Amino acid sequence: MRVVIAPDSFKGSLSAVEVANVMEQAISKALPKMETICVPVADGGEGTMDSLVSATGGKKVEVTVKGPTCKPVGAEYGVLGDNETCVIEMASASGLVLIPANERNPMVTTTYGTGELIQAALDAGYRTFILAVGGSATNDGGAGMLQALGMNLLDETGASIGYGGAELGRVASIDDADFDKRIADSSFMIASDVQNPFVGPTGASAVYGPQKGATAEMVATLDCILTNWADLIEEKTLVRLHEKPGAGAAGGIGGAFQAFFPSSMRRGIDIVIDYTGLEQKLEGADLVLTGEGQIDYQTASGKTPMGVAEAAKKQGIPVIAIAGSVGEGIEELYQYGITSVFSIVKGPMNLQQAIEHCEEYVMFTTEQVVRTFFAKQN
Amino acid sequence: MRVVIAPDSFKGSLSAVEVANVMEQAISKALPKMETICVPVADGGEGTMDSLVSATGGKKVEVTVKGPTCKPVGAEYGVLGDNETCVIEMASASGLVLIPANERNPMVTTTYGTGELIQAALDAGYRTFILAVGGSATNDGGAGMLQALGMNLLDETGASIGYGGAELGRVASIDDADFDKRIADSSFMIASDVQNPFVGPTGASAVYGPQKGATAEMVATLDCILTNWADLIEEKTLVRLHEKPGAGAAGGIGGAFQAFFPSSMRRGIDIVIDYTGLEQKLEGADLVLTGEGQIDYQTASGKTPMGVAEAAKKQGIPVIAIAGSVGEGIEELYQYGITSVFSIVKGPMNLQQAIEHCEEYVMFTTEQVVRTFFAKQN
Repeated sequence: MRVVIAPDSFKGSLSAVEVANVMEQAISKALPKMETICVPVADGGEGTMDSLVSATGGKKVEVTVKGPTCKPVGAEYGVLGDNETCVIEMASASGLVLIPANERNPMVTTTYGTGELIQAALDAGYRTFILAVGGSATNDGGAGMLQALGMNLLDETGASIGYGGAELGRVASIDDADFDKRIADSSFMIASDVQNPFVGPTGASAVYGPQKGATAEMVATLDCILTNWADLIEEKTLVRLHEKPGAGAAGGIGGAFQAFFPSSMRRGIDIVIDYTGLEQKLEGADLVLTGEGQIDYQTASGKTPMGVAEAAKKQGIPVIAIAGSVGEGIEELYQYGITSVFSIVKGPMNLQQAIEHCEEYVMFTTEQVVRTFFAKQN
Repeated sequence: MRVVIAPDSFKGSLSAVEVANVMEQAISKALPKMETICVPVADGGEGTMDSLVSATGGKKVEVTVKGPTCKPVGAEYGVLGDNETCVIEMASASGLVLIPANERNPMVTTTYGTGELIQAALDAGYRTFILAVGGSATNDGGAGMLQALGMNLLDETGASIGYGGAELGRVASIDDADFDKRIADSSFMIASDVQNPFVGPTGASAVYGPQKGATAEMVATLDCILTNWADLIEEKTLVRLHEKPGAGAAGGIGGAFQAFFPSSMRRGIDIVIDYTGLEQKLEGADLVLTGEGQIDYQTASGKTPMGVAEAAKKQGIPVIAIAGSVGEGIEELYQYGITSVFSIVKGPMNLQQAIEHCEEYVMFTTEQVVRTFFAKQN
C-alpha cells in the first residue's frame, strides 16, 4: 500500500517540503507499514524552485541582486538535477514578501533583480530557463529586468531612465544595442496561469496592482504608463502586447518575455508535474494527499491541488486535499479528481493560533484522514 | 451498504435529532444509494429524553412546574414506546439552561420542579422511571424534589423550610409522613456517569458548584449545608451518603434517590444504547457516524461517541466522530473503537460563526468524511 504526498506550501506557515514531511510523519504514526513518497509541489508561485530542485536532486545558487526597492537582497536560482535547466523564481528577487506590507508601492518597485538573476545564470553557462513569476511586487512591465540585461531605456533627452513603474512613465525610446546577446540563444518557459492582457480593465495594473499596494489613482497612472510602454515595444518589435493573453502576468513581465525573449508560457502546475515526475511516482499508489493554505473554488483555476488531482485521476487514484482554510465551492473540485477536502483547524480559533499550530494540526488531520481512508484495511 | 448515524447534540446549536438529520442529508447528497439509519443518542444529559422517545416511538407530556428559581416553566416528561417507561430529564424542570448565566445561584435554585414532574407521571399511572440528571442548576441535595413529593423538611421550630441550597441550611428534621407512597412501588434508574460523593473535596458542591454559579465561599457554605443534610438523612434512613459514590450527582439529587427511592444508577450512554436498540440497528452496517459539540480526552469517560464506539467495536464496525471542536487527547479514543475524529470548522473563525453555520458545516464535513471512507467503492 502506498500514499503519494504532493502538497503545496501553507503560505505564511509551512513550505511544501515541510508540509510533505509532516504528512509523512503522520502516516507513519497512523499506519506504520504504509509506504510513502513525498513530492512537494507548487503551481508556479513561491516554492516552485524548491519543489523542482528537491524533486530532481538539483542545487541552489545564491546571488546578491537589487531587490524590488533596489535594496540588495540575497536571491537564489535553482539548477535542476539535469544540470542544464535553471529555475528562477521571480519572488526571490522581486517579490512582495521582500517588502513590509506598508511599504508596498508599484510606482517604485522594479524587476531589475530578476534580470540580474537571469544574468548570473547566463554567466554560469545556463541557457534553458523556467521562470516562475508568481508573487511579484512589481508593475514595471518587465522594464527593470530588461535594464539589468543591457536594454537601454531612454527618456526624451536620450538619457537613461531610472527604475520602477513611475520612472517607466518617462521612457521615450528603447535602445537594444547592449541587450544581452545570449538571450537569443536561450529558451525561457514562463510558468504562469495568468491570461490577463498587458493593459486595460483586465490588465496587469487593474487586476494585480491593488494587491501590490497600488491605490485606484496609481492603477490608472500605471495602466497609462504600460500603454505607452506597449506602444513603444510594438514600434520596436512589432509584437503588440496590449491585448495579448498572458502579457499581464506579474506586472507585465509576461509581456516583456513575449516581446524580447525566445519564450513560451505554460501553466505552472503542469511544468511542476512534468519536471517532478509526479505521474510516474503516482503509478501503483492507493491514495494521494495534497494540500494548500487555502482551498476553495479558485483552486480549480490551476492551483496545485487541482493539478495533482488531474494527474491522479488519469490513474484512478483518489486524492484528498488538506487545507488551512476551506472556502466556498469545493464541489467544483470533485470533477477534477478531488475526493474530499479537510481543514486542519480543530475548532473555533483565530488565524494566529491556526498558523502557530499549523504543523501539529496538519499532522493531526493527516492522521485522521488516512485512518478514515484505510479504515477497512485495519 | 449502510451507515448508522448516531450523534449526540452539538450543545448550543443543534439537537441530536437535528445533527442526525443533517448527516443523513449529507450522505444522501454524497452517496445517493447509501442506506442510512438515524439513531440520535445522548449520554444521560440534555437530549436523553428526546433520543429515547424518538428511538422507541414514544410520546412527550407537558407539565408546568416550578423552575429552578421557582418561576413556572413548561417542562416535559417522556413516555417510551412500551407505554410503561417514563423518562424524566432533570434539565427540563431544574436545568441550567432555564436561567440566564448571570442569574445562576445554587444558594437559591431548587429541584422542586423535578419532583413535580415525577408526581405528574405517577399521577398518570407510570411506575418505571429513567431519570437523566445532567445539566441541573441545583445544589440542594435533592431536597426540593423530596418536598414536591410530600416530604416535610422542618426547621428548629418545626416550621417547613423554603426551597434552595441556602434554605436547606435551616433544616433540622425530616417528616416523611406525607411522602408519596407510590414511590415505594416504583423503580428509578438514574442515568449518571458521576462517581462523586455527596460532600467533601470531590463532592457535589466542590466539583459542580462553580459551573452552577457558586463562588468559592458559596461552595464552602453549600458543602457544610449538604453535610448537615447527609447527617440528618443518615439518622432517618441509615443510608450514609457522605462518601457514597454517585451521591454527588446533580447537586446531590443522586444521594436523595439513593436514600429515599428504590433506585439504581447506570451510565447514561448505556441506558440510551439499550433503550434505542442501537446494537441491533448496527448489525450489518459498514460505518457508524457519531458526533458531539466537543470531543477530547474527556469523551473517554462515558460520553456518547465513546459509548457508540464501544457498541460498534463489538461488531467490528468503524466509527467516525464529527465535532464542533476537537480538543486534546483524541488518541485515547482509538482503543474504544473510534477510527477518526474531525472538526466541522472550515478555517480560522470565532465561536459565534461556527455556531451560526453549524448545520452547513456538519453537512460539509459529513460529506467529506463519507466521500473519504467510501472512496474506493466509487
